[in-house]
Amino acid sequence: MISIIPKIEAIVGREHVTTAEEDLLCYAYDATNRHHCPDAVVFPGDTDEVSAIMRLADESRIFVIPRGAGTGMSGGALAIQGGLVMVMTRFSRILSIDPDNLVAEVEPGVITAHFQETVETQGLFYPPDPSSASYSTLGGNVAECAGGPRAVKYGVTRDYVLGLEVVLPTGKVIRTGVRTAKGVVGYDLTRLIVGSEGTLGVITKIVLRLLPLPEVVRTSSAVFGRIQHAAKTVSEIMRSGIIPRTVEYMDQSAISCVEEYLNIGLPVDAGAMLLLEVDGSPSATDMALRQLADVCKKNGALEINVAKSAQEAAELWQARQAISPALFRLGPDKINEDIVVPRSRIPDIVQWIDELRERTGLTMVTFGHAGDGNIHFNIILDKGDKETLGKAERAVEELFEHTIALGGTISGEHGVGITKAPYLEMEIGSEEIALMKRIKTAFDPNGILNPGKIFHESPPSC
Amino acid sequence: MISIIPKIEAIVGREHVTTAEEDLLCYAYDATNRHHCPDAVVFPGDTDEVSAIMRLADESRIFVIPRGAGTGMSGGALAIQGGLVMVMTRFSRILSIDPDNLVAEVEPGVITAHFQETVETQGLFYPPDPSSASYSTLGGNVAECAGGPRAVKYGVTRDYVLGLEVVLPTGKVIRTGVRTAKGVVGYDLTRLIVGSEGTLGVITKIVLRLLPLPEVVRTSSAVFGRIQHAAKTVSEIMRSGIIPRTVEYMDQSAISCVEEYLNIGLPVDAGAMLLLEVDGSPSATDMALRQLADVCKKNGALEINVAKSAQEAAELWQARQAISPALFRLGPDKINEDIVVPRSRIPDIVQWIDELRERTGLTMVTFGHAGDGNIHFNIILDKGDKETLGKAERAVEELFEHTIALGGTISGEHGVGITKAPYLEMEIGSEEIALMKRIKTAFDPNGILNPGKIFHESPPSC
Repeated sequence: MISIIPKIEAIVGREHVTTAEEDLLCYAYDATNRHHCPDAVVFPGDTDEVSAIMRLADESRIFVIPRGAGTGMSGGALAIQGGLVMVMTRFSRILSIDPDNLVAEVEPGVITAHFQETVETQGLFYPPDPSSASYSTLGGNVAECAGGPRAVKYGVTRDYVLGLEVVLPTGKVIRTGVRTAKGVVGYDLTRLIVGSEGTLGVITKIVLRLLPLPEVVRTSSAVFGRIQHAAKTVSEIMRSGIIPRTVEYMDQSAISCVEEYLNIGLPVDAGAMLLLEVDGSPSATDMALRQLADVCKKNGALEINVAKSAQEAAELWQARQAISPALFRLGPDKINEDIVVPRSRIPDIVQWIDELRERTGLTMVTFGHAGDGNIHFNIILDKGDKETLGKAERAVEELFEHTIALGGTISGEHGVGITKAPYLEMEIGSEEIALMKRIKTAFDPNGILNPGKIFHESPPSC
Repeated sequence: MISIIPKIEAIVGREHVTTAEEDLLCYAYDATNRHHCPDAVVFPGDTDEVSAIMRLADESRIFVIPRGAGTGMSGGALAIQGGLVMVMTRFSRILSIDPDNLVAEVEPGVITAHFQETVETQGLFYPPDPSSASYSTLGGNVAECAGGPRAVKYGVTRDYVLGLEVVLPTGKVIRTGVRTAKGVVGYDLTRLIVGSEGTLGVITKIVLRLLPLPEVVRTSSAVFGRIQHAAKTVSEIMRSGIIPRTVEYMDQSAISCVEEYLNIGLPVDAGAMLLLEVDGSPSATDMALRQLADVCKKNGALEINVAKSAQEAAELWQARQAISPALFRLGPDKINEDIVVPRSRIPDIVQWIDELRERTGLTMVTFGHAGDGNIHFNIILDKGDKETLGKAERAVEELFEHTIALGGTISGEHGVGITKAPYLEMEIGSEEIALMKRIKTAFDPNGILNPGKIFHESPPSC
């Protein structure tokens, strides 16, 4: 590895590559809180540099791990087998925004929220809103096929990627997809690369589809005595044709945990809370809010709050957004899963999780995107306590088994990476995995790009 | 080939395989009006039979060509190198409709319109609506990634396929995707197979996403003196946030041709006509229709008609639906392309087509899905007249060059098949084609499934 550093310096300039231990440590982490030191970190500045590095790495059989902002939840950006971490943050330009065609072209290092704010000033809308949007990059969002609360109405990142420029592991540069509303010429390389977790190529440009910005957004919350009532409400809303833009839920433990943290008067005895948001024209959103309130009341809502201002809407969101930080009050570490079940099975999985909590004595908190059946399941623990850790790992495995038995999937938006790789075969059959590996080889014959992700178990940390 | 017929009979039963000349002729055609006789035709009844046939064909290196209803516009179902046509029409069951989760599971031979009508009786909605919906199969729609007028609001077939059961060319059976709203586990085999034109596997089951059926649909038409005014209207509508469910247009030649055919009082001097449809709640659609009328007027619409009943809406659609049959009044043969340009470039391409028409003297008619920039470009001719045919083929090539120069694509919804295969390299680079061929090999190592499609030129007809 070290022997090719001078060649990499010649490609990107000495200031854009580092092997200093303090730098390696900075790029050894992501949001999983695991750490794996790379051998070097490079910050390429354009597609040609990425291509030259990949060609060199392929010839020298050096592992390359592409990285955005390192906010991933499944370890996709970790150098678990060492190698060269390729940080894409210098690719930070919004190249074009075309309001007439509702299309934008961006570099992968653009921060998601920055892009959203920029297009909104032009009356345009980029819906995908992972919770990490203020820090995460569009390239990372594409690589993981990020979701978010608005997915229930607007879909996920996949639904907004029209085309890509990608450097293959061999250094070859390809362009996929279209800049138009439709296109079916050749195999759909674009959507094959979306969600491939940095294992098929390094994304260097992204063509994104935009929407017109909705006129208004209205926010409301509803409190339920029992989580089953909330779950039934969600099913009925989704059948009604109203299509809210978010249908978020928090269970009793999430509500209490946030209330202890923020002390904002949340109903700590409530079984569940829903956060419902609608968008569109003022009259349509008014009517939708009334219809939502009717469905909530009919299903036993104890309390319904409708935000009368942006300020009040922000207050309603405050509880939902505080969950992740609040959880750390319950313990130093967190195992975070993002299972999805068919929407109608939410009551089953929620009740099953209640039983699992009682049976194991573990601290569990659930919240998430109820409209999609996408539940963020958290176990709060001290990973140093090996007994509890073992118990938690078994609980996760049971959760996955039960999720799949209900017709669900073990990851809705975080990806497989290394955290779910050991469980891959619970969901995907051996023929399908063999086919995926042949596709991997079609892109990466020498297996140099982001090794050990999706298909393999993680080796021990550095 | 003939030598394996007894083995195929043993798999499917003697009554479900044929080599009779009259049967071969029936399955030699599709909607391209080209004909290529297969050596045999088989009608498998379940996944196990498909698997056994594929295994046998793979071992014996026999070409297999999967076929739905044969309504494809690019030759995807034609046995251009002979072999075994595998007709999937016995896979005609709707396996389940799940209103709570807005999901259905179907076999590929289900007729699209039959499926739509069935889910609509349960208050559900399957939006993709290719013009062939009354005859085409869902399996064919998935294989070609069919579009249709409603794509402007609801997207194309790809956006409704959650998962698939597929028999690989080797006979192995795989299951892809999820039955849930979200899922990111492993590579996106589902969307790789959608639109792969029957070259990667034989689809035997489809999991489809549904929507709640919109409360009402309202239809209106607008007549413009100049097509440029209509085009500008389309751009402004799409930016406005109204999002109609169809934005169809017909040019002057399409209007005259239909009027001659139907004699229903169409404005034959008009430069263009738009057919605009909105759906949703009664109040929202009322408001949207008023807004649409305002935009049309502002951009010079000469006449706006709003249908007051389903009967009147059907009358407005009558003109649009009569275009294809009406065109045959102008000549015995038709070259039909479905280019897409960025929406704002519609005026450019329309003007360019006018010039092309004048320059070549060919009979050209355009209509299509203006909201998507998707234009169906037709040359009406007698293919027996070799001089005109040559001129038309050069005109198509020029059209494709100009489309690509405008940032467009040579196929929005019909696929490449054999008709566009000679032009593939105008749009897709050699590295991308090489990668697609490696993916093809990952699925089909012996190249037995639907050979000569997408990547190769068509051999001469039988």
